Amino acid sequence: MRFDIITVLPGLLESPFAHSILQRAQKKGIAEIVVHNLRDYATNKQKSVDDYQYGGGSGMVMSIEPFAACIEKLQAEREYDEIIFMSPDGVTLNQSTANELSIKKNIIILCGHYKGIDQRIRDIFVTREISVGDYVLSGGELPAAIVVDAVVRLIPGVLNDETSALSDSFQGELLDAPVYTRPADWRGHKVPDVLLSGHEAKVNEWRHEQALERTKTRRPDLLE
Amino acid sequence: MRFDIITVLPGLLESPFAHSILQRAQKKGIAEIVVHNLRDYATNKQKSVDDYQYGGGSGMVMSIEPFAACIEKLQAEREYDEIIFMSPDGVTLNQSTANELSIKKNIIILCGHYKGIDQRIRDIFVTREISVGDYVLSGGELPAAIVVDAVVRLIPGVLNDETSALSDSFQGELLDAPVYTRPADWRGHKVPDVLLSGHEAKVNEWRHEQALERTKTRRPDLLE
Repeated sequence: MRFDIITVLPGLLESPFAHSILQRAQKKGIAEIVVHNLRDYATNKQKSVDDYQYGGGSGMVMSIEPFAACIEKLQAEREYDEIIFMSPDGVTLNQSTANELSIKKNIIILCGHYKGIDQRIRDIFVTREISVGDYVLSGGELPAAIVVDAVVRLIPGVLNDETSALSDSFQGELLDAPVYTRPADWRGHKVPDVLLSGHEAKVNEWRHEQALERTKTRRPDLLE
Repeated sequence: MRFDIITVLPGLLESPFAHSILQRAQKKGIAEIVVHNLRDYATNKQKSVDDYQYGGGSGMVMSIEPFAACIEKLQAEREYDEIIFMSPDGVTLNQSTANELSIKKNIIILCGHYKGIDQRIRDIFVTREISVGDYVLSGGELPAAIVVDAVVRLIPGVLNDETSALSDSFQGELLDAPVYTRPADWRGHKVPDVLLSGHEAKVNEWRHEQALERTKTRRPDLLE
């Protein structure tokens, strides 16, 4: 699977893609993540990628031409399944979208900045607009990293233990039950007895009850 | 405002905090972001920060002791308003939580990994559990960066143009209207005439209509 990310801040994405699971997935050849500097596609001599917005108002708008040039260069090299624009007014990312994207082959992600991007980029090129949540961020870079992380970890062979991704919260209907590790007693705060009992059926029953209880309390919407 | 982030992957957070608005906020002395390596607080000789979970099952659980040692060291130095644990089963981050956090002084953020963290850390130390959305990620680092970005940009003096944050999506009730910049005609795709009219009242009316329409279509829940 290949991600091409187009951004004015390629440096911002350096460390998130160079660690942990994303690093491993790239080393194993399962995922390729290429970050493109939008400024390399600026057409004017100031190398600007944004301009004042039509109609007036504060905030700069990212121009259509540099994005178009970068996208069209990439499209000349391979076919893309999706061109995603990260935007707070996109469809909110959830685990089922992550699952859906994890079976695609080539994805372009556009990172917006400033006041937004020229609407024509969205109308002409973008196949999917994704928001990571109802909050405003400085740009689309962290959201792009979130999408890549959520998706890549689902590709078979990326996680060490294949059961790990399947037992995560949101893959089933319930949140995870509480987990504990040593010491069994920390300054008087003890691990629940049942987890120390060695009685597998009871442990499973307790975990299911706890998961159900936690979901009911915290996220009743997931049970509907 | 100060953020202390506790993580097993401090390197992952290097570039997000060294660019753009977060870099500027730190240079201006408005925000201080300190990343702590949890492994520096490991107490055993293997420097391990996780262990098998009680009751069995796949996935390692992060131990209470290193987190406790790091938190207590920080608490000895200053008072913290919040100790936040980034978790998919936390309360979903939204703009009003970001606003609320932006007036705090000192915040610790704990990044989870693997199968989760020992429940006692959450019970004893954590004041707030935040999820950035209904999807599973490799760890709490990107979510921590999201929180820091969403919050820091709201602090007065961080953004160049103080009106910018106020006119963002989610600060009001509506999504943003489409924006356009030059050229007015790109391969036959034209900017709406009204934006070129120079008629401010008409521009504002059009923008309000567009914002309303977009919100109705994409996020009717915001209008309820």
